[in-house]
Amino acid sequence: MANIGSSSRRHGDTLPHIHKVGAPPKQTLFQEIKHSVVETFFPDKPLEQFKGQTGSRKFHLGLQSLFPIFEWGRDYNLKKFRGDFISGLTIASLCIPQDIAYAKLANLDPQYALYTSFVCPLVYAFMGSSRDIAIGPVAVVSLLLGTLLTDEISDFKSHEYLRLAFTATFFAGVTQMALGVLRLGFLIDFLSHAAIVGFMAGAAITIALQQLKGFLGIKTFTKKTDIVSVLHSVFDAAHHGWNWETIVIGVSFLAFLLITKYIAKKNKKLFWVAAISPMISVIVSTFFVYITRADKKGVAIVKHVKKGVNPSSASEIFFSGKYLGPGIRVGVVAGMVALTEAVAIGRTFAAMKDYSLDGNKEMMAMGAMNIIGSLTSCYVATGSFSRSAVNYMAGCKTAVSNIVMSIVVLLTLLLITPLFKYTPNAVLASIIIAAVLGLVNIEAVILLWKIDKFDFLACMGAFFGVIFISVEIGLLIAVAISFAKILLQVTRPRTAVLGRLPETTVYRNIQQYPKATQINGMLIIRVDSAIYFSNSNYIKERILRWLADEEAQRRSGSSRIEYLTVEMSPVTDIDTSGIHAFEELYKTLQKRKIQLILANPGPIVMEKLHASKLADLIGEDKIFLTVADAVSTFGPKGEAVV
Amino acid sequence: MANIGSSSRRHGDTLPHIHKVGAPPKQTLFQEIKHSVVETFFPDKPLEQFKGQTGSRKFHLGLQSLFPIFEWGRDYNLKKFRGDFISGLTIASLCIPQDIAYAKLANLDPQYALYTSFVCPLVYAFMGSSRDIAIGPVAVVSLLLGTLLTDEISDFKSHEYLRLAFTATFFAGVTQMALGVLRLGFLIDFLSHAAIVGFMAGAAITIALQQLKGFLGIKTFTKKTDIVSVLHSVFDAAHHGWNWETIVIGVSFLAFLLITKYIAKKNKKLFWVAAISPMISVIVSTFFVYITRADKKGVAIVKHVKKGVNPSSASEIFFSGKYLGPGIRVGVVAGMVALTEAVAIGRTFAAMKDYSLDGNKEMMAMGAMNIIGSLTSCYVATGSFSRSAVNYMAGCKTAVSNIVMSIVVLLTLLLITPLFKYTPNAVLASIIIAAVLGLVNIEAVILLWKIDKFDFLACMGAFFGVIFISVEIGLLIAVAISFAKILLQVTRPRTAVLGRLPETTVYRNIQQYPKATQINGMLIIRVDSAIYFSNSNYIKERILRWLADEEAQRRSGSSRIEYLTVEMSPVTDIDTSGIHAFEELYKTLQKRKIQLILANPGPIVMEKLHASKLADLIGEDKIFLTVADAVSTFGPKGEAVV
Repeated sequence: MANIGSSSRRHGDTLPHIHKVGAPPKQTLFQEIKHSVVETFFPDKPLEQFKGQTGSRKFHLGLQSLFPIFEWGRDYNLKKFRGDFISGLTIASLCIPQDIAYAKLANLDPQYALYTSFVCPLVYAFMGSSRDIAIGPVAVVSLLLGTLLTDEISDFKSHEYLRLAFTATFFAGVTQMALGVLRLGFLIDFLSHAAIVGFMAGAAITIALQQLKGFLGIKTFTKKTDIVSVLHSVFDAAHHGWNWETIVIGVSFLAFLLITKYIAKKNKKLFWVAAISPMISVIVSTFFVYITRADKKGVAIVKHVKKGVNPSSASEIFFSGKYLGPGIRVGVVAGMVALTEAVAIGRTFAAMKDYSLDGNKEMMAMGAMNIIGSLTSCYVATGSFSRSAVNYMAGCKTAVSNIVMSIVVLLTLLLITPLFKYTPNAVLASIIIAAVLGLVNIEAVILLWKIDKFDFLACMGAFFGVIFISVEIGLLIAVAISFAKILLQVTRPRTAVLGRLPETTVYRNIQQYPKATQINGMLIIRVDSAIYFSNSNYIKERILRWLADEEAQRRSGSSRIEYLTVEMSPVTDIDTSGIHAFEELYKTLQKRKIQLILANPGPIVMEKLHASKLADLIGEDKIFLTVADAVSTFGPKGEAVV
Repeated sequence: MANIGSSSRRHGDTLPHIHKVGAPPKQTLFQEIKHSVVETFFPDKPLEQFKGQTGSRKFHLGLQSLFPIFEWGRDYNLKKFRGDFISGLTIASLCIPQDIAYAKLANLDPQYALYTSFVCPLVYAFMGSSRDIAIGPVAVVSLLLGTLLTDEISDFKSHEYLRLAFTATFFAGVTQMALGVLRLGFLIDFLSHAAIVGFMAGAAITIALQQLKGFLGIKTFTKKTDIVSVLHSVFDAAHHGWNWETIVIGVSFLAFLLITKYIAKKNKKLFWVAAISPMISVIVSTFFVYITRADKKGVAIVKHVKKGVNPSSASEIFFSGKYLGPGIRVGVVAGMVALTEAVAIGRTFAAMKDYSLDGNKEMMAMGAMNIIGSLTSCYVATGSFSRSAVNYMAGCKTAVSNIVMSIVVLLTLLLITPLFKYTPNAVLASIIIAAVLGLVNIEAVILLWKIDKFDFLACMGAFFGVIFISVEIGLLIAVAISFAKILLQVTRPRTAVLGRLPETTVYRNIQQYPKATQINGMLIIRVDSAIYFSNSNYIKERILRWLADEEAQRRSGSSRIEYLTVEMSPVTDIDTSGIHAFEELYKTLQKRKIQLILANPGPIVMEKLHASKLADLIGEDKIFLTVADAVSTFGPKGEAVV
């Protein structure tokens, strides 16, 4: 206890001890419950605008809230339409060849993807709130749907397979809408960014490998998606000879597509070069095959795309029978994945243009679009990252660009689908390969490695899961690793020993600030988390271990530890298990003749300390506003020691 | 921007701006991984004592660590043995009648519970580290096991049922041991205290209701455990007449047991009165029935308890076949529940006597004891709360009291089991009822209500789940509610607006401290959680909403908000999603011409801010050690405004 009383009133050393720890006015049970329900499910206060309005005005606002088009539509003008028209045409020219290709990933005939690109963007334009997203079938969801459906019905030529696809689409929509209506949108936040990066990259590689079938003109190909089986198929087929005409077509158009992509990347203004190159590839290659009749030399072609507008599929959906269960299961998974992708895209572009996106409303729009889609022969649609980027760069202003695209697809369906007959599959494979390579985001992976090793692990887990096992397993690994991280977070919160920064009353982690010095006779520990049942025991034991470590270290020389101050600033909440843990901590310390001091408990913690009488047990005079106050009362009034 | 520069150097107003935010020395990847593995799985540093020891010493320490008896056994003396001998005899007299009764809950013959009370305490005495726990069959686990096993094999008289019970016990032991060896003991922390209170109370009521069969002498009784079915059975049986002789025996001994319990509660020194009263009840009632031959008048009796020591059951366990799966399933559930109970008991008494309990080692001891038990005709054993309390009060010193109890049970098995033939079932029912009523902890429930409404909800959910549906459903509800709480915690962390306490440089939540005043032109927000993928979007949006709310409030009069300070003290970690969210926040604020300022980011956050170049984007000069520093640099240099 050296230096008692010396230099205690130096500038900034101790503050006048004028404030006590506050307890906010006590809330009634109803207020308390209301507050937590609002914060959990309605953090955006969706009903605020309805307050104090007349009945008809409320109806009007409700309509606008469900169909945002009635809100932004009133300010719509010709200038905006010019932007939307051009971008709509651009994404249409990109989506038509992509659609025909992606349908194959879902093991469906090409027209179903075109149907999807006609109905779903229309519905979204009325209900969605993103201005930049481009709606339609996407590669990853198509692959996922194809894999999951084939697990249930392996014969994908059968009519049951098609019906199951519509059923899954219907339940994907129901899932999405339910998440929106029940305001459970936060559930999709449980798929971490890192896991998504890995999953997407894995899916992209898997999709690209699958394209080797069309690209090399291989006739018998494995149905599995893992890299080992696929490469086996590829090299087995090499013995019977690959089809060199197909390879020539594939390689040349892939080169063309990649070069245009490269040009667009180097010069952002030339983005349209990459955007229209798939359409050009289709036109040129189709014409070439038609002229040379290369299909007679073994070049596989599309053969048939059904002409005409979507037929109804309402009666095709399984609402009972043995396929109802699988339909729901596949639908829930595909719906969640599709939603994750759409919300990620929506958020990215909303942040770039600084407008706000209502997640729950987006989910309802997605849900409505897929439900309506499932009744009109569409399969699961979502936001496409590549087409949304093109949409944004082409200067879209509102969701009208989706309407323009939808009309172009409609005209295509009505007029020119027969022309796709001679389109070689190799070109479609090239288009897919060129498109999905953009999903492998190597910079993001490098950033993950740099910032957070655990995130990198999650990313790699999902990636290797997808490419070596299957899409579902990859997804499962992604979710499992994401959850493991959350569990670690809640069971093993951090704690830190604090010391005083020289010449201040600021107390900081001594590991981060080696200059900070500890207080003679006192140990100060900060607990960095709410204290709940999942971590209360760990926290208690960790504090006691800090104490034991410090006692062992300080044994030589300085005086024994008489006070243990727990800095509670980060402890936003405590539950009954936490209260019990502190009671036990208090009793253990009592036995060892060490005083327990609390610094800066928050409002909720104060309330619970009082409700449980723990505040009386510890003593009101042991609860301080700041660590500095505690030190100035119980500390050695002088210099700190290490 | 009123009062620029006035009174800025008042006492305690601003501190010399001498410290920068520290970044600790960068760790290598290996150090980083090692550190987090150690903190997660080895927070107690179990291998520290082995460091720098010779080989034989290491072996010695390892043996002691696996069998703590070799450690404490060396200091064992006669004085300790006296305490252990008396307490061992006391718990033996309590456990023998309880065992015979509890075996019925598991639908097993009475001798199996006695076998369990012979072998398991012996094994525990060698391997366990608790000094107070009393090992044996307990009511709740017996009921759970009985219910789960009957779901698989409804004919509990069959030999398969018995074999399945041993199989489940074996896998319960394997589960427990695996959790210990893999150091996953923290998993049992996921059953919250509140949920356990509710589950235990529900199980107690359910068990008590089940006893009405024996208590009222009802012959046909429902196999379901829910309160509605049971009361139905009871009142249906009323028509055929209950057996009045049985009721007389039951009621009188229940009254006796409850009175002795009440005496023991009032006068702690008379605890032994309650402890030996079950044995007295058994002896007196058995003698009474034998004399009066009341069994001929319809009083149900035990009839037969097999004499002799445990036979081997190694060959009875299903290691293959259709019962392997159910055996594993039941074993995992029963093992986890048994473990939760044992660890809770162990911790309670360890805290009362201030010795430390190694959770993972306890699990290995429990696991070994149940595995060995399953090979010697025992079923799942764990710590009994009532017997442990008696053990503690009778002055036990070490686990030797368990050995004494075990020997008494062995003698019972060898010599006096035939004497239990005339023990009336009604007395066993009374013993069970008296014992399980102690599991209904009304004070704990009231405390839950007072401290944390959500905990109360979890408790009630588990309670009503057990009594109205079934034990499994109650358990499931308990786990589900516990998890929901964790999910809420990680997705909806709290944020608070800070203001300055008058005459200090301390910034606190303005809701808790209404006197705290906000700073002109600056909004200060504290984020109260690590920022992970599960909450990064919510935090970003919540900060922007605080900003919008404050802008709306401050519009009248004072100057516009130019600075947004985020107090990061509680933010112990951030992952890539969190970094992205801050990037987006920064961009949005840029668009609105608001500067983003960070105060006191922790060591890990600083490292990641640098690794991601976000620190450069925000600007090193915008990152401060304290909020006070940020205000003194960018604030209005004068008075604060509301």
